[in-house]
Amino acid sequence: MRTKKYVLTEKDMPRQWYNIMADMPNGMEPPLHPGTGQPCGPQDLEPIFPMNLIEQEVSTQRWIDIPEEVLDKLAIWRPSPLFRAYGLEKALGTPARIYYKNEGVSPAGSHKPNTAIAQAYYNKVAGTKRITTETGAGQWGSSLAMCCAFFGIECKVFMVKISYNQKPYRRLMMETWGAKCTASPSNETAAGRSILEKTPDSPGSLGMAISEAVEVAVSDKDTKYALGSVLNHVMIHQSIIGLEAQKQMQMAGDYPDVIIGSAGGGSNFAGLAMPFARDKIEGKQIDIIAVEPTSCPTLTRGPFAYDFGDTVQMTPLLPMHSLGHNFVPAPIHAGGLRYHGMAPIVSQLVLDGIIRPMAVHQMETFNAGVTFARSEGYISAPECNHAVAATIREALKAKEEGKEKVILFNWSGHGLVDLGAYENFFRGKLSDHELPQSEIDAALKDLESLPKPRQAKK
Amino acid sequence: MRTKKYVLTEKDMPRQWYNIMADMPNGMEPPLHPGTGQPCGPQDLEPIFPMNLIEQEVSTQRWIDIPEEVLDKLAIWRPSPLFRAYGLEKALGTPARIYYKNEGVSPAGSHKPNTAIAQAYYNKVAGTKRITTETGAGQWGSSLAMCCAFFGIECKVFMVKISYNQKPYRRLMMETWGAKCTASPSNETAAGRSILEKTPDSPGSLGMAISEAVEVAVSDKDTKYALGSVLNHVMIHQSIIGLEAQKQMQMAGDYPDVIIGSAGGGSNFAGLAMPFARDKIEGKQIDIIAVEPTSCPTLTRGPFAYDFGDTVQMTPLLPMHSLGHNFVPAPIHAGGLRYHGMAPIVSQLVLDGIIRPMAVHQMETFNAGVTFARSEGYISAPECNHAVAATIREALKAKEEGKEKVILFNWSGHGLVDLGAYENFFRGKLSDHELPQSEIDAALKDLESLPKPRQAKK
Repeated sequence: MRTKKYVLTEKDMPRQWYNIMADMPNGMEPPLHPGTGQPCGPQDLEPIFPMNLIEQEVSTQRWIDIPEEVLDKLAIWRPSPLFRAYGLEKALGTPARIYYKNEGVSPAGSHKPNTAIAQAYYNKVAGTKRITTETGAGQWGSSLAMCCAFFGIECKVFMVKISYNQKPYRRLMMETWGAKCTASPSNETAAGRSILEKTPDSPGSLGMAISEAVEVAVSDKDTKYALGSVLNHVMIHQSIIGLEAQKQMQMAGDYPDVIIGSAGGGSNFAGLAMPFARDKIEGKQIDIIAVEPTSCPTLTRGPFAYDFGDTVQMTPLLPMHSLGHNFVPAPIHAGGLRYHGMAPIVSQLVLDGIIRPMAVHQMETFNAGVTFARSEGYISAPECNHAVAATIREALKAKEEGKEKVILFNWSGHGLVDLGAYENFFRGKLSDHELPQSEIDAALKDLESLPKPRQAKK
Repeated sequence: MRTKKYVLTEKDMPRQWYNIMADMPNGMEPPLHPGTGQPCGPQDLEPIFPMNLIEQEVSTQRWIDIPEEVLDKLAIWRPSPLFRAYGLEKALGTPARIYYKNEGVSPAGSHKPNTAIAQAYYNKVAGTKRITTETGAGQWGSSLAMCCAFFGIECKVFMVKISYNQKPYRRLMMETWGAKCTASPSNETAAGRSILEKTPDSPGSLGMAISEAVEVAVSDKDTKYALGSVLNHVMIHQSIIGLEAQKQMQMAGDYPDVIIGSAGGGSNFAGLAMPFARDKIEGKQIDIIAVEPTSCPTLTRGPFAYDFGDTVQMTPLLPMHSLGHNFVPAPIHAGGLRYHGMAPIVSQLVLDGIIRPMAVHQMETFNAGVTFARSEGYISAPECNHAVAATIREALKAKEEGKEKVILFNWSGHGLVDLGAYENFFRGKLSDHELPQSEIDAALKDLESLPKPRQAKK
């Protein structure tokens, strides 16, 4: 019997997270205070985050110990299995050896609990009684809800109104785990009320939901805010994916020529890629591909710039590839990839030539997802299908070239709660969406008045 | 770090299924031909099933080799992890040690693929081009759809109408895996048409859907029928759950005092319980509990009798606990448990005193599911919550008695595609349902004219 998957036990679970900020060839540019334009100090972030997470956010320590209490809960779904995709290889007739890391095994069905559990723990230690957050499709909100339940912390989620109405199942997951979920914009915050005054039937957006969640956090000392992607400490927590994958590839006796992950805010991609990016920085030849939707082409068509994380300009300015904080992506179903910016760590590594960005169209991603489901069994989340599509592209290229390439991708989560999107696909209701350059140019105007990063291209 | 879960590798996967028919203290009574009332020969089943599965159905061989091709696909989700439920133990404050086998890790989210993959394989070998089946909540139909996709077999599923309408996501899973799914009763079969004539707005039942699926199978020589529970060969395929669990309990250094599984047709329960039932037959003290809903109390209130597997009386007569083939259970949401009969193997073992049946009310099961989700993370399917509820009962009893009892239950599948039922629960739309004895008496009248098993109680 050939080995289909590589399984680690809890004993093999990494005991430290990897922080690529210790190894980045050109370092990172600092976040800036939105008012002064000066680098943010820890105290600027204190109303929003607990100090122990702020310390991680700015740490350049290469290895960070994972607390025992976090390991104990991570063990509910970790280590996650690494699969050899024999079925997909056969379906494609490719000589490539395809591997995928299955992050769908967590109770929430995605990689998001990897950081939710750490954030809930650090907040618990810091005495936080309540955590607020925003969520789009609901993968992040549901993951945080679960992890807050584990540590007895109240959880309040502002969910983008259109998703709140279209995706009742992820909302119900949050309720099952005891969180309070509100459609955003809501009447519960000044930010929400001011938006509703102007546009009473606003469908909401991540930017608006962030504003509401942050407002609630800063107005109460026992309440903090949590973000499920983009920030450095989130990338650090997700590094456990790649660290496990390195051990598992070793078990398989292979090393990846290509590494692939879908990228919205960047966390699942970076989680798998960063430990391998370190190998690349040290001289290994690896093609590391971040895959985004053509309808929200942050890395492929947005500049490296300073920009706000949210629409209402409450967050610090982050050095990142961005389409401008007012950019509203088309309503494609990969809600988790509809973010105007990109994690500063991922953005910097693209700038450094370590990561290669790629954009794929929606129809290609769903076709890829169906091919994957029928050959490997697992039904992917629409976000994850971007990685599957890029994998199929690379595997078919290997076939054309007759090369025995080794491809590793992050299967970031299942799509069992996203089957409405598949229904639209089957019923012919989806299409591709190529953004006109004029729309991008207009959105980028919002960046003009902001400070420029040192490394920004002229 | 305490061990949270016990993980086997593919190398540790059982290479043979266990067939409890070799060890049953009073043997099994044979199925009867519906026309002659005489014991069925293999040729009677040939229009419905391929001969290789019929051979398994009547086998009394203790160990049956699992074909390499089946092992290769089983390895996509097996071996499944065994968890120690520290979180639940703490939430209940019980001295009991609670373990659960997590069958929700399969791509379909339940234990059903364990037999679907074997049945698809044996049909493939026998030259079957198309498989028909019925499904209630959709766990079985979706599992068979996936496994047919793996082997390139067409799949046609008759889905109980009320579930078809209430559970679009499982229908979409079937479509994603390439199956055709029809609401039953349908106009596509004579059986369906005759039911619709009498009751045009029938919500459907498993019994009706079976009639439709069997009719399609017998009318075409390249088409066979597959059943996801009840039959002996299904129980045999599911024994892999218990065989793995035995190894894992050994790793944990524990042995169960109590074994619990939810029982509709009996397959997930028997899958876990049978290898342990063998130990019990050989003298071990174990309390083996099959948990059913009070709204469909086949084991607790139905007699051991010969009855048809379907409403339209097309199947052989099976010796089983039954509420009568016309019994239509109340539309509780645990669709997978709404079956009028029970696996003959499970029925016989209840008769033999090896298995203890228990019925639980709906509200208790959902409350149990919420407790489990908030302490262990995983959101259970409504069916599975019956096992969780019984586990909590036993754990609280252990607390009262101050006993360090070891409880092992089968967590047969997740409920991420069943969150509509949770919504009804949260909104106060669910209630308990105690069947009036008069209703049961009326349903049992259908059994009067049928042959009686030798061991039937007077």
